[in-house]
Amino acid sequence: MALISPSRRLRRTPFSQGVEEAGVRAYTVYNHMLLPTVFESVEADYHHLKNHVQVWDVACERQVELRGPDAGRLMQMLTPRDLRGMTAGQCFYVPIVDETGGMLNDPVAVKLAEDRWWISIADSDLLYWVKGIANGWRLDVLVDEPDVSPLAVQGPKAEELMVRVFGESIRNIRFFRFGVYQFQGHDLVIARSGYSKQGGFEIYVEGSEFGMPLWRKLFEAGEDLQVRAGCPNLIERIEGGLLSYGNDMTDDNTPHECGLGRFCNTHTAIGCIGRDALLRVAKEGPVQQIRPIAIDGDAVPPCTQFWPVFAGGRPAGRISSAAWSPDFRTNVAIGMIRMTHWDAGSRLEVETPDGMRTATVREKFWM
Amino acid sequence: MALISPSRRLRRTPFSQGVEEAGVRAYTVYNHMLLPTVFESVEADYHHLKNHVQVWDVACERQVELRGPDAGRLMQMLTPRDLRGMTAGQCFYVPIVDETGGMLNDPVAVKLAEDRWWISIADSDLLYWVKGIANGWRLDVLVDEPDVSPLAVQGPKAEELMVRVFGESIRNIRFFRFGVYQFQGHDLVIARSGYSKQGGFEIYVEGSEFGMPLWRKLFEAGEDLQVRAGCPNLIERIEGGLLSYGNDMTDDNTPHECGLGRFCNTHTAIGCIGRDALLRVAKEGPVQQIRPIAIDGDAVPPCTQFWPVFAGGRPAGRISSAAWSPDFRTNVAIGMIRMTHWDAGSRLEVETPDGMRTATVREKFWM
Repeated sequence: MALISPSRRLRRTPFSQGVEEAGVRAYTVYNHMLLPTVFESVEADYHHLKNHVQVWDVACERQVELRGPDAGRLMQMLTPRDLRGMTAGQCFYVPIVDETGGMLNDPVAVKLAEDRWWISIADSDLLYWVKGIANGWRLDVLVDEPDVSPLAVQGPKAEELMVRVFGESIRNIRFFRFGVYQFQGHDLVIARSGYSKQGGFEIYVEGSEFGMPLWRKLFEAGEDLQVRAGCPNLIERIEGGLLSYGNDMTDDNTPHECGLGRFCNTHTAIGCIGRDALLRVAKEGPVQQIRPIAIDGDAVPPCTQFWPVFAGGRPAGRISSAAWSPDFRTNVAIGMIRMTHWDAGSRLEVETPDGMRTATVREKFWM
Repeated sequence: MALISPSRRLRRTPFSQGVEEAGVRAYTVYNHMLLPTVFESVEADYHHLKNHVQVWDVACERQVELRGPDAGRLMQMLTPRDLRGMTAGQCFYVPIVDETGGMLNDPVAVKLAEDRWWISIADSDLLYWVKGIANGWRLDVLVDEPDVSPLAVQGPKAEELMVRVFGESIRNIRFFRFGVYQFQGHDLVIARSGYSKQGGFEIYVEGSEFGMPLWRKLFEAGEDLQVRAGCPNLIERIEGGLLSYGNDMTDDNTPHECGLGRFCNTHTAIGCIGRDALLRVAKEGPVQQIRPIAIDGDAVPPCTQFWPVFAGGRPAGRISSAAWSPDFRTNVAIGMIRMTHWDAGSRLEVETPDGMRTATVREKFWM
């Protein structure tokens, strides 16, 4: 494995000092920012995440902030999800599509007020698309990247840790809702959300200067809970079916291909830029779709490019994410599979760098 | 130094196999793609680049392709550089600005024809801005990322190597011009350009399948020239004053602050989206500007965040790139310095992670 070269361009985060003190071993780059990927080992981190509580530096989930009278209109232009029923205090997972229906990002939209939104983005410069649209359509809205860095607290003991720092009322936050809490006299948006299936919260740390004080406070409060620095875990997120933009889908794919049809209300999402392009696929369904796939045999190597998938020797799709799951004793994977072979139980062949492997489409992800 | 975690999201290039065979030691990530940063060592690579010839995998310089009747109009909307005099066959370095005059990218525009352009981008998803503008302004143009991966041949022996592969007529390509050459019966755009001051070419490899054959051909032809795999070199590019988007400037900065005023014709660049915002600074000049700076003392550590710069104890700017130069026996650096202290010879203090260092503004870069 190669090293990562340090530079200003790969931005540090308000929590980088804590991450380094915790002994980070590997990084990836996400939204031009360092995202830790390994502390002890991917497998050790995985077991710990499923049993205890971790604090994750996910500052790389940058925000695109929309402010002004046209903020709501602009937000609806970006997504085929109907936002009319969304109230301030809610978070919505929203596919963002271009005029062809191709996915540009799959962020979480945070509605702070009617005229103020954060879009908590996956790995692409969504800011550029949103600014371009706002400019071209002459919308009365300010679009920028604020100094907001999410810190996630994830794992079965996450709620207990958060209660110790922010008080009992944290328990009242429902899934994909947020509340505003105080830290050192400063307001912080805290949502029940996160990029794992182990439960937890995301703290939107507004003001970099609060980063390390909050990091330290969480570690002090959670010592007996065995709190550790962690990060989105490759194995756990594949088991949980959490997609990764840039890995599992790109602008080549519609939300429907990604299995995100349930987040699209294409018929009623009036104003969505990709609406016309998506109406047909929304009605008829896609011809390929993301599926959970179990790959037979020993642990597969890292998936660094699409692995072709075949059925009876003919092309049937591709694998985009894969890892050995210690808990399920198989390789868990995410792939885009053609309609003819996407039914659960379908037998496939996967061309891995180690050679052909047999594989099976699963009914659902491993959860 | 930490490792880089492999994933599909950090895209491999058509030349990755060659890069790995050559023993790459470190990468950065650039436009969601792997960019090698070290082969033998940054210093050894530097000496070799200045004396021989290197082949660089700069596939991460992705292209944004504009095609259609409004392609030229759109291109002019993006930049304050007046493009009226540009003919097909030319390359222009073009600052790209938003409606506030903030830089979004500093690419090279390649004019293939009146209605077909490539924008060879620095590290930001310029595609998203251009697509947003094209959509919002209802322009009749197709905007996408084609399968084009630049391969650079750089160093004093670059021309000799290129002649051996593409013929004598390569010598006729003038600086920032391109010609079309054949490789295995396939047309390739070849420009005299590149991200070093040692001279050389960039081959726009259209069609990933030609990547490794061309790579191997260059290494076979250049064996006695001591050709090696290389990459943009931190020391050499600072010495040469080549700016790095995301390191030395961001959308906070105008082209004038970056010393790119000579690439702006704000008065006559009719249609440029940032024109109104830039008119005043174009006339009056900026209050801070990028300067070459020599930092005293031993080799500085890697610059991973802005280093504050002071003059007589008062804030005077920040350093964004720095490295020890073996040839000039000083630390060479790039910094944004306030008007009051940007004159050559001005004495400064730089707050490095190792402590305060004295420094001096230079007249020009080390070339």
